[in-house]
Amino acid sequence: MQLTLYTDISLRVLLHLAKEQSDIPFTIGYLAELFAVSRNHMVKIVNKLGKGGYLNNVRGKGGGIYLGRPAEEINIAEVVLLMENNTEVVNCEKNRCHFIGNCKLKTILNQATDAFFSHLRQHTLADLISNETNVNVPSF
Amino acid sequence: MQLTLYTDISLRVLLHLAKEQSDIPFTIGYLAELFAVSRNHMVKIVNKLGKGGYLNNVRGKGGGIYLGRPAEEINIAEVVLLMENNTEVVNCEKNRCHFIGNCKLKTILNQATDAFFSHLRQHTLADLISNETNVNVPSF
Repeated sequence: MQLTLYTDISLRVLLHLAKEQSDIPFTIGYLAELFAVSRNHMVKIVNKLGKGGYLNNVRGKGGGIYLGRPAEEINIAEVVLLMENNTEVVNCEKNRCHFIGNCKLKTILNQATDAFFSHLRQHTLADLISNETNVNVPSF
Repeated sequence: MQLTLYTDISLRVLLHLAKEQSDIPFTIGYLAELFAVSRNHMVKIVNKLGKGGYLNNVRGKGGGIYLGRPAEEINIAEVVLLMENNTEVVNCEKNRCHFIGNCKLKTILNQATDAFFSHLRQHTLADLISNETNVNVPSF
């Protein structure tokens, strides 16, 4: 049971933008290299996070990527729900199971997934970076 | 965020064995065809569930696959934990994230995963099949 790499990297990009205060804005190329993903992958992540209002991508010379709102206002459950295409942990249709509509497996797993998101809903991006020491961020 | 197909099918195999009372024991070939997976895949599932004590595979003529204990004694969380190779929803090493050891992302996601399993731990296989009507099981 894993979040997609897409969601995983999205959370780390937001963490990076929240933690690293810099006068030099971050670019897609820098973030792609930092998290060892392709530029194309990072473009998709930045676009989707941008549409969700979680970051701003200012184009042109001197432009860059910034958080779209304060870290205290970025809820972790909402980010994960935005980025994951599918939050159903089993796919009843796909397996053509003859118990469809006649079994509580999906119901109980969906309730467990709700418990997962209820916990995440209690946390913001600010919680993830609180009480920490600085880290050494590589420069490219 | 999905359980592996391996875990998904395992749960459905146990459901099938618990629901379908039959004098003719189920075989690996029957179960593989029923859930549209390869025979090789079903052999692995049956072996692992057998090692966990969840089913018995009686070999030879007239043999077959049976539940290894009453459905009331098969806890859903325990089955999922047995079958999933990895219950960490993000992989911090894999992405070579520079926040490793200096960030609460993994801690908060692990707590959310604990909430997921705490819910499943409240349910047994018997709960999944209670208060239901019979289904039409295809015969091969």
